[in-house]
Amino acid sequence: MGEDGRTKVSRGPSRRAGAVDPFIVMDVLREAQALEASGVRVAHMEVGQPGGKAPRKVLEAARRAMEQDDLGYTDARGIAPLRERIARYYAEKHGLEVSPERVFVTTGSSAAFTLALIAAFDAGAGVGLANPGYPAYRNILNALDLRPELLAAGAEEGWAPRVDDIAARMARGMAGVLLASPVNPTGAMLSDRELRALVRVVEDAGGVFISDEIYHRLTYGAPARTALAFSEDVFVINSFSKYYAMTGWRVGWMVVPEAYCRAVEVLAQNMFINAPSISQHAALAAFEATEELEERKRQYAGNRALLLDALPGMGLRDFAPAEGAFYLYCDISALAEDSVGLARRILHEAHVAVTPGMDFDPMNGRRYLRFSYCASRADIEAGLERLARWMQRNRP
Amino acid sequence: MGEDGRTKVSRGPSRRAGAVDPFIVMDVLREAQALEASGVRVAHMEVGQPGGKAPRKVLEAARRAMEQDDLGYTDARGIAPLRERIARYYAEKHGLEVSPERVFVTTGSSAAFTLALIAAFDAGAGVGLANPGYPAYRNILNALDLRPELLAAGAEEGWAPRVDDIAARMARGMAGVLLASPVNPTGAMLSDRELRALVRVVEDAGGVFISDEIYHRLTYGAPARTALAFSEDVFVINSFSKYYAMTGWRVGWMVVPEAYCRAVEVLAQNMFINAPSISQHAALAAFEATEELEERKRQYAGNRALLLDALPGMGLRDFAPAEGAFYLYCDISALAEDSVGLARRILHEAHVAVTPGMDFDPMNGRRYLRFSYCASRADIEAGLERLARWMQRNRP
Repeated sequence: MGEDGRTKVSRGPSRRAGAVDPFIVMDVLREAQALEASGVRVAHMEVGQPGGKAPRKVLEAARRAMEQDDLGYTDARGIAPLRERIARYYAEKHGLEVSPERVFVTTGSSAAFTLALIAAFDAGAGVGLANPGYPAYRNILNALDLRPELLAAGAEEGWAPRVDDIAARMARGMAGVLLASPVNPTGAMLSDRELRALVRVVEDAGGVFISDEIYHRLTYGAPARTALAFSEDVFVINSFSKYYAMTGWRVGWMVVPEAYCRAVEVLAQNMFINAPSISQHAALAAFEATEELEERKRQYAGNRALLLDALPGMGLRDFAPAEGAFYLYCDISALAEDSVGLARRILHEAHVAVTPGMDFDPMNGRRYLRFSYCASRADIEAGLERLARWMQRNRP
Repeated sequence: MGEDGRTKVSRGPSRRAGAVDPFIVMDVLREAQALEASGVRVAHMEVGQPGGKAPRKVLEAARRAMEQDDLGYTDARGIAPLRERIARYYAEKHGLEVSPERVFVTTGSSAAFTLALIAAFDAGAGVGLANPGYPAYRNILNALDLRPELLAAGAEEGWAPRVDDIAARMARGMAGVLLASPVNPTGAMLSDRELRALVRVVEDAGGVFISDEIYHRLTYGAPARTALAFSEDVFVINSFSKYYAMTGWRVGWMVVPEAYCRAVEVLAQNMFINAPSISQHAALAAFEATEELEERKRQYAGNRALLLDALPGMGLRDFAPAEGAFYLYCDISALAEDSVGLARRILHEAHVAVTPGMDFDPMNGRRYLRFSYCASRADIEAGLERLARWMQRNRP
């Protein structure tokens, strides 16, 4: 017992909480912020969030909602106009009929992952994840007592998981997959043929396919196809955080297979109540902010071109095809043994923040760095210039 | 395969999703809305959400944040000024020193439950819940593969779980408890002595105590004590949704025992990223909106007095001590066998929406109705008048 009569016991976190890894990118961010606090100007090529405010029309809608609406609890599935607007998006962009009844507005894609995974899988189930991939996938799986099965999807596999690998794992009892296209951190995309084949192999084996489409509309060649084009029984997860530039508003959506709609609704009522009301009203305007959003995308495309142009001259020639998202994933094994150490040196000596690959790939990540190019053009230009100078001095 | 070449497979929800019950109150709400759509005016005594907008100062802060801040991602633990302000709340209201390092801003209390439960317990662990109690507790436990152990806390137990019951269950391996005071649906409160004894018995057995304090500051006699007054190793969960009237903004907080802080931070990064940025900035002003909030509380107190005055005259004399929150939990066994049927009749015949007890108590809930009194005085007056007329016609 403490001096003040309050008891003091010591226990510790659960096993499953212990299995959740911190993001290395967060440590990079913290070190970068400490540097900046000491007066250094850091070029940010580490964080995967669009800078600046949400689109003007979105902010206007938020202001209007504050005046006209009480912003109390909403239907756990989201406000009807937004669910209808999202359904219409699939008609407009993909030529697909999706009932608003299957559309759930979620507290970012994060809540959608939790809902889909709990609705679809029981504790202990194996769920396939592309490796490299978004680290929160395997961490959420661990937190929910699911078992990540890492599907090799690196340079050797052409940056996509292999159908025969998945088939073999499904035969051994894997329960489903959670896959993204475009991929964070590689920027690679699945072709229509690949996506169709992956959906087919999972569903033929009776598994559940969860498609993370958060980087849709951020593609620099052909647009991305939704997995809904190939099956009505996939979970499709999307968000207003990336293309729509509404990161901190925490609003996304999910299209749910009919057989799971009631289960997801009840889970959402209990676990989340509803996505933030003001963000739902604001998001309704996001679909009408195309002009501003396409301007942003042109900026990403310009930054991407700068990187593709400058990196080879620094000896960085080996990267995944940067077809979508705003990332470039670069093999640095010719320069250094370990990308964590390399990233730290680049941060402290060149004042450029980049992300080591270990977050995304526990196996081969130390050979890779992820460059994010959603910062301002000035940041990217400054970053590349400093990087070039540093590389010149430090190249082996 | 469908006609359009899209595959169509059928699987179904997981076992754990199937264990999650829908809220009966939601069905009541839906029926009430259908009635209203047909032109009937319904008096709302079913929903546990303060009506109207958030306090004026909160809305101003939200508007200011939209102008001055990009509202991007924040620290997973929440923005520093809000964490500091919450820490100061414990000094001001409870005379306790709480480090801001232990304060986590969460996406409503909902996210705090998920984070605390995953951080503290592994799959299969038994967690004690007072019965009757908030139904989402047991549903979230089921979704996270934890095992609800219902602790009798009804009229016979004086509306509080018994220390010896908990001691016996802890000896048999129960891992901890999640308890609230004031309680939804009963409005009952734990005395200081009871709360201290409950914390002690759980911690002495090496278990984890999670204290839901969402109805703090909504008490009509002595103020509620925080469990932090009795131990530094409890999880304390609170929210801006009830007293602070910010329901749809989805922002709450949690004070985390030191040994769990890192685990909760990493879980929050992965599962939630951050509580909505605009809501965090808005919540900062909630502590300064006391005048408006105390006016609301006076309104609840007035409504409560109306109920306490009117119900006995209708033959409803048997209810839990309505010391806090904005609920009155009433034994209706003298009137009807089943409160679900009674609630439906009252809705359709008297046009008053109330909640049957089965949501809160799967064992004895059919003997109880919950009256919520956070609606407007006009709603409560109209509701009581109709209820009195209906009772007069229908009393046995």
